[in-house]
This record gives sequence, C-alpha cells and structure tokens, in this order.
Amino acid sequence: MVNNVMNNRNIEEIVKNVVNAIKSTNLTLSEARYIVRKVEEEAEKIGVKAVVAVADCGANVICVECMDDAYIASYDIAVNKAFTSVSLKMATKTLKPLAQPGGELYGIQNTNGGKIVIFGGGVPLIKGGKVVGGVGVSGGSEKQDTYLGDYAQKVFEELK
Amino acid sequence: MVNNVMNNRNIEEIVKNVVNAIKSTNLTLSEARYIVRKVEEEAEKIGVKAVVAVADCGANVICVECMDDAYIASYDIAVNKAFTSVSLKMATKTLKPLAQPGGELYGIQNTNGGKIVIFGGGVPLIKGGKVVGGVGVSGGSEKQDTYLGDYAQKVFEELK
Amino acid sequence: MVNNVMNNRNIEEIVKNVVNAIKSTNLTLSEARYIVRKVEEEAEKIGVKAVVAVADCGANVICVECMDDAYIASYDIAVNKAFTSVSLKMATKTLKPLAQPGGELYGIQNTNGGKIVIFGGGVPLIKGGKVVGGVGVSGGSEKQDTYLGDYAQKVFEELK
Amino acid sequence: MVNNVMNNRNIEEIVKNVVNAIKSTNLTLSEARYIVRKVEEEAEKIGVKAVVAVADCGANVICVECMDDAYIASYDIAVNKAFTSVSLKMATKTLKPLAQPGGELYGIQNTNGGKIVIFGGGVPLIKGGKVVGGVGVSGGSEKQDTYLGDYAQKVFEELK
Repeated sequence: MVNNVMNNRNIEEIVKNVVNAIKSTNLTLSEARYIVRKVEEEAEKIGVKAVVAVADCGANVICVECMDDAYIASYDIAVNKAFTSVSLKMATKTLKPLAQPGGELYGIQNTNGGKIVIFGGGVPLIKGGKVVGGVGVSGGSEKQDTYLGDYAQKVFEELK
Repeated sequence: MVNNVMNNRNIEEIVKNVVNAIKSTNLTLSEARYIVRKVEEEAEKIGVKAVVAVADCGANVICVECMDDAYIASYDIAVNKAFTSVSLKMATKTLKPLAQPGGELYGIQNTNGGKIVIFGGGVPLIKGGKVVGGVGVSGGSEKQDTYLGDYAQKVFEELK
Repeated sequence: MVNNVMNNRNIEEIVKNVVNAIKSTNLTLSEARYIVRKVEEEAEKIGVKAVVAVADCGANVICVECMDDAYIASYDIAVNKAFTSVSLKMATKTLKPLAQPGGELYGIQNTNGGKIVIFGGGVPLIKGGKVVGGVGVSGGSEKQDTYLGDYAQKVFEELK
Repeated sequence: MVNNVMNNRNIEEIVKNVVNAIKSTNLTLSEARYIVRKVEEEAEKIGVKAVVAVADCGANVICVECMDDAYIASYDIAVNKAFTSVSLKMATKTLKPLAQPGGELYGIQNTNGGKIVIFGGGVPLIKGGKVVGGVGVSGGSEKQDTYLGDYAQKVFEELK
C-alpha cells in the first residue's frame, strides 16, 4: 500500500516533469513578454532606447516592443537579430568574427534575404540543450546591445 | 505487489505516450520524405508532374522534390503553398474564396512578401489538434493539385 | 558493298538528326537574336516601340533588346513574360483568364516574387513537344503585344 | 552480310551513346535524390546536420532535404550555394577569394538578389565538359560543408 501511494506520487512527478519538457520545446508569449520587459528595464537603467524582439523555435518573431524614441531602423535590426540567433543557433556576436572579410562565413550577411545580422545583440535561448527561441536587441552601441542580449539570456535562465 | 507492478507498467505507458506527444509537435525529415514520395506516386498515376514541398510547424520547408519535367514556376508555388497552410493553419482551397475581390481577406495575397498562395494544393498537417506542418503541391490543374494536397493529408493520417 | 555504303549514309543521317535533337533541347543566342530582330521589324511596321526578351529552357533570359524610346517599365515586363511562358509552359494570354478573380489560378500573379505576368505577350517556344524557351514582348497595347508574341512563335516555327 | 550486321550494331551503339549524351545535358530527380541521400549519410558520419540542395542545368532547384535539427538558415544557404555553383559554373570555395575586399569580384555577393554565396559547400556537377547541375550543402563548419560538397561531386562522378 505504501509503495502504491509512493508510485502515485512518482507518476504525478513524472507527468509534471514531462509536461514541463513538452512546454519547453517552444516559448510562450508570457515568457517572451517577461524577457522583453526585463530587458527594457535594464536598457532604461543604462540609458538605451531599445527595440527588443523575441522569436520562437521556428525563428518566427512572437513579441516586439520599441521603447519610446527608439531608432526606427532598430525594428528591422532587432527582428533580424532574433531570426539570426535562432536560425543559426548562435549569438550574433559569435557570428561577427566569422563573417568578417577573410572569415569562414564571410558573405553570410547576404545569403538569407537580408535577415542575417553579424554584430552583437542577438542571442539564442536554450533549454535542455535545444534552441527554443531567440532575442534581438537594437538601439544602443554594439557593446550595449550585446550586453542587453546577454542580459536577456540570463533572464531566461532564471525563468526556467 | 501486483498493484505495484501494474503501476510500473502504467508509468512506462504514460511515459511512452508523453514521449510520443513530445515528438508529435513537429515533423521529421523521414515523415516528410514519406509524404513526398506517396504524393509523387499518386501524381504519377493521374499524369501530373508535381512539385511537392513539406514545411514543419515553424512554416520552414524541410523537404522539396520536383518531378522530372515539372513546371519551373511550381517550385516557388509548392513551397509557398506549404508556408501558407502552416502559417494560416488553413488549406489554401479554404483561403481561396476569402481572398477574392470583396472577400473578407482580399489582399492577403500581398501581405506576406508574396508567400501566401490562394488556390488549392496547400494543406496543413494536424496532430492532436495542433498544426505540426504543411504540404504544398503544384504542377497540375488546381483540381489536381487540390486532390493531391488532400491525398497528402490522408497519407499523414495513416502515418500517425 | 552497296548495302554497306547505304548504311554509312544512314549512319550519317542518323547522327545529323540526333545532333539536331541535342541542339533542340535549348536555344542558342543566334536563334534568340534572330527572333528578337524579326519581332522588332514587325513592331516597327505596326508602330510599336517594343522590348523583346528571349529566355532559354531554364527560364533564364539570354537576349533582351529595347527599341529606342520604349517604355522603361517594359524591360521588366518583357523579361517576366519570357520567364512566365517558360516556367509555366504556357502563353501569358492563356494564363490571363485563369488568373482573374474567381479563376482557377487567381493569385498566381503573387506566388513567384513578382515574376508571373498574366496578360498577353509572353509565349513558350516548343520543339519536339518540349518547351525550349520563351519570348516576352512589351511596349504596345495588350492586343499588339499578344500579336507580336504570336508572331515570335511563327518566326521560331520557320526557323526550325 | 557480316559487314552489314556489324553496321547495324554500330548504328545501335551510336544511337545509344547519343541518347545518353542527350540525357546527360540535365539531371533527373532520381539522380538528384541519390546525391542528396549519399551526402546525408556522409554528413551523419561526420556529425553534421546538413541541408542538401540540388539544382539542374538552369540553376533551378529540383531537390532539397533538411536533416532533422539542421539550422533553419541553412535552407536558403544550401539552395543559394546550388544556384551559385551552376550560375557561375564554379565551386563556391573557388569564388571565396575572388569575392573578398580587394578581390577581383568583390561585391558579387550583392549582384544577384542575394543568391550568390561566397563560402564553401556549393559545387557544380560536370558531365562531358558541361555544367549539368549543382549541389549546395550547409549545416557544418565551412570546412565540413566544403568537404561534403566535394563528396557530392565524387558521388556524381561515380554515378556517371
């Protein structure tokens, strides 16, 4: 009997874990929105008017916000950074050296209809070893965008 | 003891079902390839030289084949039918009346960079109530493409 | 001996025919240029300043000429008419009714990155039952462009 | 009589050779599919999740497959590598140095609507001195993609 009860608890636990595993294969809007808000708060602190975009595991953007007075051009840049980081499973700062003249992937900035960004601010979101989404930040210097991208990853880590 | 063993079996069963559920959130290449072949065989039977494309749940194409002597234009059309059916969770034949002049969605053929197709031959693939992918067929008359799209759905149903 | 000589002649003939068959799978520049010139002469006669484009069997344009003072927009239109007629193995005048609102292929004008033209002036060039290329004419009324397209087909027939 | 029979055999042989020559001007789907599978098997062996695309002699893609979990971005890259290698009759690794800043063809990455790729993994398929198609591989490091492209050429050589 005792064993039996134990097993029922085990089943509940297993089911809960597996349900979490299912959920973890993609991002929800509420997760995306939470990341965007947190990044915006951090951008505010460091004096950047950022555009923050979040894409899901299919590299399709599911949430974008432009802080008041952000660069108009940053919309496309943030969206494309999010696309890049999911579709290449790589932070855009990691792609940067590879895409320089003479680099291994020089020219990749032209291969996907203008959607590959090769400077910092785009990061993949990883769960259980899988890329489940990506974030693109644009609006500050490259250093600032890179910082905010890395910050987005940290927010996501804590969310898990 | 007996109950205990039963429970262990139950756990195994639950885990198996849930693992299948996880897998079922997207298509594999081997499933996509199987659908493409089956549609090609049927196209052969009805005398159509088809292009068949399969997209995953993110509307990203994962398999395309052009039967010998198919229309060159059919490549883009099949790929875009697959995109349309996943991205709108709708068969392109269902979209057709909505996209006619005066229709509810007239103009949707222009909203997504030329990737929305509004005539038959694109179908979503549905599993557990979720769109897990889509198929686009081009190469015959609209009636033939529509028939082959519906056939792809049947092949997928039997595959599940 | 006599038979032998006969056979040698036969061989020569067979080889010549087969060489022609090989050649006939695609257009040469000299054929394309001849068609363009002939269509321009006819356009001159009927008072049209035409752009004439010829595509090969892969739907890649191999010759374009713009008569003095032709419409600037006609360059793209002629090139796309040539693309359309090869890639759909169909005259653009035949596609026209199918692509009207309510028609079987309504919306096809949007499926191939803006390269499908749905009014007269584009014709496939057919040899031995195969589409070996296509011509696009733009610059006059639709009636005139259609006439000049049909004329291009006649020129090609006589060339064979 | 003997001579006569000989000649008939000769004729048959000549015709067979020439028919093969005609066929060899383009790739069939079954050839393309065979190359794709072989490259996928090799990619599996070296631990790369590749996208493999094959284009015909008109630079039109006739077969693409994305191995499970391949980069989403690799679809466009593989397709464009296949396009590049046919349309420039050159391996993309050969184009690479020419397209660097200061190189002879620097800027060619921008001339064809984003369809020219300038790093390794695209190869032309050559038969009888003619480019009859091309393969594009994307998914690994440039070294791996280049290796797999070269491997595709070898598979094609053995197929001939």
